[in-house]
Amino acid sequence: MIKASIIGASGYTGGELLRLLIAHPKVEIVQATSRQKLGEYLYQTHPNFRKQTTLKFSDPAELIPTDVLFLALPHGQAQHNIAKYAAVAEHIIDLSADFRLRDADLYQQWYGEPHAAPDWLDKFVYGLPELYRDELKTAKYVSGVGCNATAVNLGLLPLVNTGLLETNLPIIAELKVGSSEGGASVNSGSHHPERSQTIRTYAPYGHRHTAEVIQESGLADVTLTMTSVGLVRGALATVHGRVKDGVALKDLWKAYRLAASQNPFLRIVKERRGIYRVPEPKILAGSNYADLGFDLNPKTGHVISICAIDNLMKGASGSAVQSMNLMLGFEETLGLEFMGLHPI
Amino acid sequence: MIKASIIGASGYTGGELLRLLIAHPKVEIVQATSRQKLGEYLYQTHPNFRKQTTLKFSDPAELIPTDVLFLALPHGQAQHNIAKYAAVAEHIIDLSADFRLRDADLYQQWYGEPHAAPDWLDKFVYGLPELYRDELKTAKYVSGVGCNATAVNLGLLPLVNTGLLETNLPIIAELKVGSSEGGASVNSGSHHPERSQTIRTYAPYGHRHTAEVIQESGLADVTLTMTSVGLVRGALATVHGRVKDGVALKDLWKAYRLAASQNPFLRIVKERRGIYRVPEPKILAGSNYADLGFDLNPKTGHVISICAIDNLMKGASGSAVQSMNLMLGFEETLGLEFMGLHPI
Amino acid sequence: MIKASIIGASGYTGGELLRLLIAHPKVEIVQATSRQKLGEYLYQTHPNFRKQTTLKFSDPAELIPTDVLFLALPHGQAQHNIAKYAAVAEHIIDLSADFRLRDADLYQQWYGEPHAAPDWLDKFVYGLPELYRDELKTAKYVSGVGCNATAVNLGLLPLVNTGLLETNLPIIAELKVGSSEGGASVNSGSHHPERSQTIRTYAPYGHRHTAEVIQESGLADVTLTMTSVGLVRGALATVHGRVKDGVALKDLWKAYRLAASQNPFLRIVKERRGIYRVPEPKILAGSNYADLGFDLNPKTGHVISICAIDNLMKGASGSAVQSMNLMLGFEETLGLEFMGLHPI
Amino acid sequence: MIKASIIGASGYTGGELLRLLIAHPKVEIVQATSRQKLGEYLYQTHPNFRKQTTLKFSDPAELIPTDVLFLALPHGQAQHNIAKYAAVAEHIIDLSADFRLRDADLYQQWYGEPHAAPDWLDKFVYGLPELYRDELKTAKYVSGVGCNATAVNLGLLPLVNTGLLETNLPIIAELKVGSSEGGASVNSGSHHPERSQTIRTYAPYGHRHTAEVIQESGLADVTLTMTSVGLVRGALATVHGRVKDGVALKDLWKAYRLAASQNPFLRIVKERRGIYRVPEPKILAGSNYADLGFDLNPKTGHVISICAIDNLMKGASGSAVQSMNLMLGFEETLGLEFMGLHPI
Repeated sequence: MIKASIIGASGYTGGELLRLLIAHPKVEIVQATSRQKLGEYLYQTHPNFRKQTTLKFSDPAELIPTDVLFLALPHGQAQHNIAKYAAVAEHIIDLSADFRLRDADLYQQWYGEPHAAPDWLDKFVYGLPELYRDELKTAKYVSGVGCNATAVNLGLLPLVNTGLLETNLPIIAELKVGSSEGGASVNSGSHHPERSQTIRTYAPYGHRHTAEVIQESGLADVTLTMTSVGLVRGALATVHGRVKDGVALKDLWKAYRLAASQNPFLRIVKERRGIYRVPEPKILAGSNYADLGFDLNPKTGHVISICAIDNLMKGASGSAVQSMNLMLGFEETLGLEFMGLHPI
Repeated sequence: MIKASIIGASGYTGGELLRLLIAHPKVEIVQATSRQKLGEYLYQTHPNFRKQTTLKFSDPAELIPTDVLFLALPHGQAQHNIAKYAAVAEHIIDLSADFRLRDADLYQQWYGEPHAAPDWLDKFVYGLPELYRDELKTAKYVSGVGCNATAVNLGLLPLVNTGLLETNLPIIAELKVGSSEGGASVNSGSHHPERSQTIRTYAPYGHRHTAEVIQESGLADVTLTMTSVGLVRGALATVHGRVKDGVALKDLWKAYRLAASQNPFLRIVKERRGIYRVPEPKILAGSNYADLGFDLNPKTGHVISICAIDNLMKGASGSAVQSMNLMLGFEETLGLEFMGLHPI
Repeated sequence: MIKASIIGASGYTGGELLRLLIAHPKVEIVQATSRQKLGEYLYQTHPNFRKQTTLKFSDPAELIPTDVLFLALPHGQAQHNIAKYAAVAEHIIDLSADFRLRDADLYQQWYGEPHAAPDWLDKFVYGLPELYRDELKTAKYVSGVGCNATAVNLGLLPLVNTGLLETNLPIIAELKVGSSEGGASVNSGSHHPERSQTIRTYAPYGHRHTAEVIQESGLADVTLTMTSVGLVRGALATVHGRVKDGVALKDLWKAYRLAASQNPFLRIVKERRGIYRVPEPKILAGSNYADLGFDLNPKTGHVISICAIDNLMKGASGSAVQSMNLMLGFEETLGLEFMGLHPI
Repeated sequence: MIKASIIGASGYTGGELLRLLIAHPKVEIVQATSRQKLGEYLYQTHPNFRKQTTLKFSDPAELIPTDVLFLALPHGQAQHNIAKYAAVAEHIIDLSADFRLRDADLYQQWYGEPHAAPDWLDKFVYGLPELYRDELKTAKYVSGVGCNATAVNLGLLPLVNTGLLETNLPIIAELKVGSSEGGASVNSGSHHPERSQTIRTYAPYGHRHTAEVIQESGLADVTLTMTSVGLVRGALATVHGRVKDGVALKDLWKAYRLAASQNPFLRIVKERRGIYRVPEPKILAGSNYADLGFDLNPKTGHVISICAIDNLMKGASGSAVQSMNLMLGFEETLGLEFMGLHPI
């Protein structure tokens, strides 16, 4: 059994990591820290752990040596202590934004301050197996992924990989996201009477995850437009671009089928009948799938690529565990078999 | 035009009062106070007031003389300043729990501390027109009503008024309520990802509104069981009791029809066809109606009375404005004509 | 009192018309037809009408002469009987798509079959007062508006009217809409367990309302992308375009302020504080407002215009009643004063 | 590997069975029938099966011999063909109501018509392992359980088993349930705009599951009051009764702890801190747990027992698979390990 620890385990990303690791057949959790909930049972915060574990939140100041250390801290913290973390674990997976961007300047541009550990940036592999499967197999340090960036990157992947997209034209990615993206901390906008049933375009452009899309897709002119909608888990990216002259719908089919065949957690959803003809995040709650759809306006070459994920799974903890599996030589899908619920 | 002021206008009850008074044809708002939002436009807190009023929140320490003063403060505050308030307004309507109970001992029993102004208790009329229409016409001081107590009291009214109920047996009132009952203040339990789609029996017995039901219904053995469910506005009371021997369904019809005919905001909902055969709070959002349903198990005499309200309207601000109308000699329904939305 | 009739009154658009007209101080409803619900009380279908009206659904085959006839039939029906309808009413407002497009060829292109009454097309004024206020004042025949087209047209209005927009570049309008857009008829996709909390991009391009946007905005390359989300009432359009060189954020402020000042139901929502900083449809439920927001990426000239409406109000029945008011010489806002609810 | 077939696999209960059996390590699905969806892929109806199985719905008229046959048909059908089913499978688990009641008269009383196969009634074991663990180990025929009956029976179990309850007084069980209880068939009341955010007491008394509670609890005077609320999966029973004289809260603790210790899927939720202090069904979505809470009014002896379940799991397919595990000698919890999601 591999030993794993989670730093910052009381939030939603930490909780989802714990859920996956508690059930993982090759992993034993040795430590789950939370300064705020110190000494409390995990299940008092994450009620789904009742009868699953009697572990308590421990002190992040007293780290136990471990095989894999997951960091699920708020953005901007891990970079200040990364050397300390590396001293207690051979493998680190940091789910914050701290080590996602390889370029310290890009980091400063999008996060507004200089990076505290720029030398560490190129030691990390971006933890999206659909993009870095081979690199992850030999990685020691893995960064997590931005949930919205992931929905866009996976939506673009079949188009970018096959060169079907006009790369010099603007890409507009419209994201519709649930309330769990905001995390476990309370604020006035997350108060249920205010947040319930909202449709709120809270960031028309400039969302930080844009940087990850630019870095990973290689596209220059990308806009992420963020809209909060009425559910808890889930993100849908509807990505608008133009295909190159002569590209037809059958070329898209080929590109998406290739992507789905190469990646265990990518699926195409493009049906002519039934209720679920296109990707929908709600049926992915708890699952690690990214469901892909697409369409093409043949008159204009306008391509719309759709990607649905559970933001806490494929968009965060699921990809992290998938990366861990690759890094440690386990079956890539191990512990990620939950197929989601219907109806929900 | 009558001059009205609202003390504590930034909360949900205060906001709903403002909504009604802004549109009321006989009322001019002279002041709306909020310590927390001092100097801000009302519409920055209550976004439905945009283009309706350019009033700003003012300082509760600087009260302007007015005709009617509405107090929408947290429980326990109005009783400490009631003399001060009476000095600036001839009529007062206090929406908190401070002056609902006529008996200072009963207050202490349910609210856990002695009342700060016991001499004022009998100056107040309980602001439920269905119970105190005549008294309200000559009142100077009116208390608001507890939203849950109101759903139960109105559900029981036809049975109590006609003497059909066995009054010495236990009454169990099961309330299902929306998130706005918790008010505008944020807490961890109201965080959208936690509160969304909940079914949470948070108070199996002992809810403070029980005292108002006991006082107003005259019944001794009453339990209110509170369950939070997934909506914002609305409360449904399902009240269980036993009718006296020999009481039949037709007697209930008669009792409920009488109540509905005597009260402009009571309606019977008991249909054999259509989707809306029984009372439902969601179609009452923004309206002052209380919808009543009932059924009788003829074998056992078990009677179930159902009452649906919008907790912010009939359960708080709507009844307060209805009481104001009576107190000031206006048409009882003035400014309360909104009939609710369907679908919603 | 003006006499009004509604043909097809059992659907959601018809129900919303009825709600407005029952409360309208200058209108008396003489007839509300429904073949399916013939003989039933209106309130058995629209439960908010209980204690408001004892009218029953009547037979559409037996039309009573009236002053204004509202047609709220499924698309494709009104055009076959328009002469018959004109024989019983001097004024007609047709809320279906039948008379929205002035060009019969455009109709055929988007609706897939030739128009049955092409001679009538130019007798109708498009019923959006923000675009045709003057024409509506002398109109006899008014078409309703497409709800999604309206969100986009009003979002674009300040930009188009002031010439700030690059009109030869693609416009992408991303709409997020509630379940009431699908109407009152049941289908497998609207079944609550399936439709609840969905995020479903059901029409990436090609939505019929696109034709109305092209016609009214004068823009050639417009895409409407439709996504169903988890609420009942409400539509939000997030519209992407490019401004002309040199256009700055202050120019947008000027353009939007002009539009808001000229139109009683347009409002700007662009705040720096509070929860409601941008337009949100949920607080518009039942109101006739269209709330407008905007932002500009100064580096790229990418402009994002946001418009929130209640699809059944400003997007359908509200605009129809507003048009009626203009047509009959009433105050434009008469009967449309409801300001919406907060919280909801 | 055991061979299993599901008759009536396109509904929600059938879909949930399939989900559990696809992932079950000891079971191979040989057939899943649906007359309506014949020839379609399972994943076109149950979108969570995509990339899990390429099985298609087959014809219920052409049954393949199998080890365990699950019947997930509408009520009233299985009893007409039970001999035919027994001919193709040694073990049968019928999830309908047909074989839940052991007494044919009781069946006729609650279901309104005589039972078609009364001789089979005593061959079936009621499929609730918490009540019939030992009997299930040797059973050949197992009935499913009513979801609402299960919430009540498990809520009552600790009280009944320990003799703490006054059994001659009325028991009122108030159930709040999600929309999936209504099944996959569309009706006007399940249309999203109507069903969304409802609180609808649709059956104040007389629900058919009452019969199962009477049979299994041994209590005579039981009322189930049913209220639909705004979520898809989940049922909460709040059960009101009286304890015998002298029973104190510590006795309840003992009784509930005993039940939780004896049953792997029973848990006590009664916390003093945190958000989840009482049982809530939403965190049980997809899990087989029944969460139990309780409280006692020491003045009156009024006991409130609370039980939360996922109606499709512990209330139907989860208990069925748990029963199958016992019947076939597998680990009781096999294939039922999913712990549920938080947040959700």
